[in-house]
Amino acid sequence: MAHIDLGIDETENPGIRGLMRYRPETAGPLNALAEALLRAPNSLTSGERELIAAYVSGLNECVYCCSSHSAFAAAQLPEGMPLVDQVRTDPDGAPISAKLRALLGIAAVVRDDARKVTGELVSAARAEGATDLEIHDTVLIAAAFCMYNRYVDGLGTLAADDPQRYVENARHIVEHGYGR
Amino acid sequence: MAHIDLGIDETENPGIRGLMRYRPETAGPLNALAEALLRAPNSLTSGERELIAAYVSGLNECVYCCSSHSAFAAAQLPEGMPLVDQVRTDPDGAPISAKLRALLGIAAVVRDDARKVTGELVSAARAEGATDLEIHDTVLIAAAFCMYNRYVDGLGTLAADDPQRYVENARHIVEHGYGR
Repeated sequence: MAHIDLGIDETENPGIRGLMRYRPETAGPLNALAEALLRAPNSLTSGERELIAAYVSGLNECVYCCSSHSAFAAAQLPEGMPLVDQVRTDPDGAPISAKLRALLGIAAVVRDDARKVTGELVSAARAEGATDLEIHDTVLIAAAFCMYNRYVDGLGTLAADDPQRYVENARHIVEHGYGR
Repeated sequence: MAHIDLGIDETENPGIRGLMRYRPETAGPLNALAEALLRAPNSLTSGERELIAAYVSGLNECVYCCSSHSAFAAAQLPEGMPLVDQVRTDPDGAPISAKLRALLGIAAVVRDDARKVTGELVSAARAEGATDLEIHDTVLIAAAFCMYNRYVDGLGTLAADDPQRYVENARHIVEHGYGR
């Protein structure tokens, strides 16, 4: 149960959902940021961007966010959940493009200590075809999930146990977007 | 110099300012979040909330964000920069309320590993008079600065050297707000 009284049924509103109902003034910008980073038109697909979000959330061991964004990525990648699971457990061996692998590498460093992102790491991503905008968005997605993960876990919210819940949420997000 | 070409003069637009000019689509929600967390009406003053932001940014060793929000806090606290410096170097000994000290303690845990925020830590803040909304906002401020700090440092942006620049920015923020 959350550390504060959210005034809602947490089993119906697990994770960030309960927090967003509790504090709509901050939910607005938080949803708008997710929409801009993960769903707005971009040379990285929504599936690829959700994969970065799921990967970072997994490294942060945030069960709710990792389960959610893994489901959102799986729903939007042709290879589905097997690829998401493979990227999360073995990003070096997963069958993804060299560009996406380089971007995941940058995301992992941002999560750990962003000051350690080097010009060499960025040049290597660029050599695999990453654009400056893709590098920018990867850094901000990784940084943003260091926020969302801490928000959800710092307030001790519940994660849903039933995997089907995340699949249903994924259907809603893919169809309607964040905050709708 | 930033890891990507921001297309601006970084000495004129250091830190997050250059990033926001480069990517207005994400700058909008990022500024709206800062406005809601740090400047909207709240039982915590803007000075107190900026102090939490400066404290977390200092722990993350983000020079640009820590200098900026230290200046913004100092401009809005009667005790000015000496108190900000004292909180940053010795939060346990600084002459602040027991409530603010408890909230800073929660912020530090959120920054380090949010899963370590315990019910006891939250109860202790509540015993010093913290409301659920203040606890919520403290957790989200700390989480948000784990994002802003990583965004600024992960893209290798410049921090301004001249302390006067931060004082001028503080005047602008206090008068006009974020993103204006």
